Amino acid sequence: MSEHLRVDGARLWQSIMQMAEIGATANGGSHRLTLSDEDKTARDLFASWCAEAGLALQIDELGDMFARRSGSDEAQAPVAMGSHLDTQPLGGRFDGVFGVLAGLEVVRSLNDRGIATVKPLEVVNWTNEEGARFAPAMLASGVYGGVFDLHWAQSRRAVDTGATLLDELRRIGYEGPLPAREREFSAFFECHIEQGPILESAGIPVGVVDAAQGFRWYDISLDGFASHTGSTPMVGRRNALLGMARVALAVDKIAGDHAPLARGTVGSQIRVEPGSRNIIPSRVDFTVDLRHPSAAALAAMDAELRAACREAAANCGLTLSLAQISDTQPVAFDADCVAQLEWACERLGIAHQRITSGAGHDACYVAKRAPTAMLFAPCKDGISHHESESAEPADLEAVCNVLLHAVLDLAGVA
Amino acid sequence: MSEHLRVDGARLWQSIMQMAEIGATANGGSHRLTLSDEDKTARDLFASWCAEAGLALQIDELGDMFARRSGSDEAQAPVAMGSHLDTQPLGGRFDGVFGVLAGLEVVRSLNDRGIATVKPLEVVNWTNEEGARFAPAMLASGVYGGVFDLHWAQSRRAVDTGATLLDELRRIGYEGPLPAREREFSAFFECHIEQGPILESAGIPVGVVDAAQGFRWYDISLDGFASHTGSTPMVGRRNALLGMARVALAVDKIAGDHAPLARGTVGSQIRVEPGSRNIIPSRVDFTVDLRHPSAAALAAMDAELRAACREAAANCGLTLSLAQISDTQPVAFDADCVAQLEWACERLGIAHQRITSGAGHDACYVAKRAPTAMLFAPCKDGISHHESESAEPADLEAVCNVLLHAVLDLAGVA
Repeated sequence: MSEHLRVDGARLWQSIMQMAEIGATANGGSHRLTLSDEDKTARDLFASWCAEAGLALQIDELGDMFARRSGSDEAQAPVAMGSHLDTQPLGGRFDGVFGVLAGLEVVRSLNDRGIATVKPLEVVNWTNEEGARFAPAMLASGVYGGVFDLHWAQSRRAVDTGATLLDELRRIGYEGPLPAREREFSAFFECHIEQGPILESAGIPVGVVDAAQGFRWYDISLDGFASHTGSTPMVGRRNALLGMARVALAVDKIAGDHAPLARGTVGSQIRVEPGSRNIIPSRVDFTVDLRHPSAAALAAMDAELRAACREAAANCGLTLSLAQISDTQPVAFDADCVAQLEWACERLGIAHQRITSGAGHDACYVAKRAPTAMLFAPCKDGISHHESESAEPADLEAVCNVLLHAVLDLAGVA
Repeated sequence: MSEHLRVDGARLWQSIMQMAEIGATANGGSHRLTLSDEDKTARDLFASWCAEAGLALQIDELGDMFARRSGSDEAQAPVAMGSHLDTQPLGGRFDGVFGVLAGLEVVRSLNDRGIATVKPLEVVNWTNEEGARFAPAMLASGVYGGVFDLHWAQSRRAVDTGATLLDELRRIGYEGPLPAREREFSAFFECHIEQGPILESAGIPVGVVDAAQGFRWYDISLDGFASHTGSTPMVGRRNALLGMARVALAVDKIAGDHAPLARGTVGSQIRVEPGSRNIIPSRVDFTVDLRHPSAAALAAMDAELRAACREAAANCGLTLSLAQISDTQPVAFDADCVAQLEWACERLGIAHQRITSGAGHDACYVAKRAPTAMLFAPCKDGISHHESESAEPADLEAVCNVLLHAVLDLAGVA
């Protein structure tokens, strides 16, 4: 009987749209920063929907919300689904929200048909995934995964008011009694929009995410010499911009040489001195972002970047300063969870492809504690973190159906 | 007798140092913006020195100062020497000042020996060469040369107070009765520091300037698409920074292809959007500066720049916007004046070389009305428009001696 079970795509869409009204922006997005009044309203709405669905809500010391549907064997760890309800400033309606409400829709669909599972189910809302109001991103799931210290996380300060995360949890009434690392999951699934163009351009509604890229961030400066654009001969110039131009093209080539999984970018945060059209650039400060799902490939790209920077500096007579400011390891999601998702796609006859996540997600940290995988839905033009972020109802429904069946397989029909 | 005549290098240096005290800065430079209180004090000092040297001072409607030493034939047009006393903000002690005081030193030296000339001599201080307080640069000499309208020039507004040039001339008492274009010169010579590294690195004290580069300035924008550095595949990106990098390297190559006289630079005034390390640059606004003493070569460079921009835009999937915002024609200085300066160097046994000015000077506009040439002295490390601007007393003395003898040749000993 459960093979013919499907989620209610219209209800899922309506819930996402209703949630998007909280902090709705003039241009069709949502502005719902972590632990703001809007976040509290969103949490309250989610809690009310959980109560209507008969779920038992627990809240932990970081405000993470765990809404539980009992299983026939309560001794087993739950199969969990979730993401986050906070958004970027002037962000979109789908990033995070889809993952939480897809989990809720799975539960609602099971309720509709009176289907019980052996293992319990839990729908999770992780606090502060975006990192926009409290740095860093994925703060609470990072504590859960053992990456961040609990008290350090609670003492992070809001960029707007300077209040600590704990202050703000208390202010909006979402400091819970549950210890932050207590939950254990049989498995964790996170649905999310892709935030890139791959699925949309391939016309495929479901991406089964088997890995998340590791990435390394660098702050680089090249120092040359400021002089007059007219009276300084070409030979002997020490033009910092030419050095940066060589590095930018080299970074693009390095990523191309490690195609198709590598990414390499000089980001859009650049400072050029002294800032005059008739003075040769004396200094450029810029950033580099290298990504690859293989740690070995990422290390090779790192070496190639350093060599390219040294060569550009030598070629242009510049002094190089290179600081690596982050080293986030690649994540390989659980092979059984990935296989379970693919098997669900096959049974449902839904076109799918494997995909690597280029961005960070709560699932990347949860994966350190529990068998984890993700599902991606296409998003319009690959745009995310923007009010114009958009997705198709049919795609979200397809992803949610895959989630439903994978969860049922893992939790077992009672 | 006049062959053995030499200027007093120590007096020249001392006068430059005394003038530098007006608006002296903490780091050894001068800050004496056009028609500021400091400019008035500098003008007053120059006027007092002219009076001591027996010169008759006339001031025109733009505040230009013409200090005249009579000739035995007052019907002939004077041989003129000069430059400007205003400086850049936090500028140097030599830019402009050297040219005015070298002219004064020529007169003082002739006075010392009681040498009269057939043609009169004039020492000139042009108003607002720098263009820092009132745009554009070389404003008064441009009016003299017929490039700018007098009333337009008088109505230019100060960037600090918004007062017009005429307001400020009146405020400091330097609006004169002389019509702005009335003076006629037999010849005009301007001494200046090179503002580049050529003479210093060659170890040659005197540059005989036979031309000034023409230059074209461009405002360029490349528009691409902002997307996430992690989730956006390399293929299909529309990275505006890569387009700018290609143009920057192409501009360097274009100048190299037209070596050694060409200059080509993407300047240090660059804006990259949206300004985040993990967002691909969506737009870059930048400037290009192309220079060459040949109008034909400059036109060829222009065509090559436009082709390179189109190619970069096409290659990176960008939209190109290119606006040429200035087109300053090359100046060929008067062949006889140049020959006269070289002949003086030969007779004095002073090492010299021909050089092209990469920057604009009052002489470039005066050349439209009178036979004109320039002399350059080396400046330390090629640095100018900076408090650390520096020159050697011996070099300035050598240049001034060349000026003295060329002027004597042209004016004739009475």
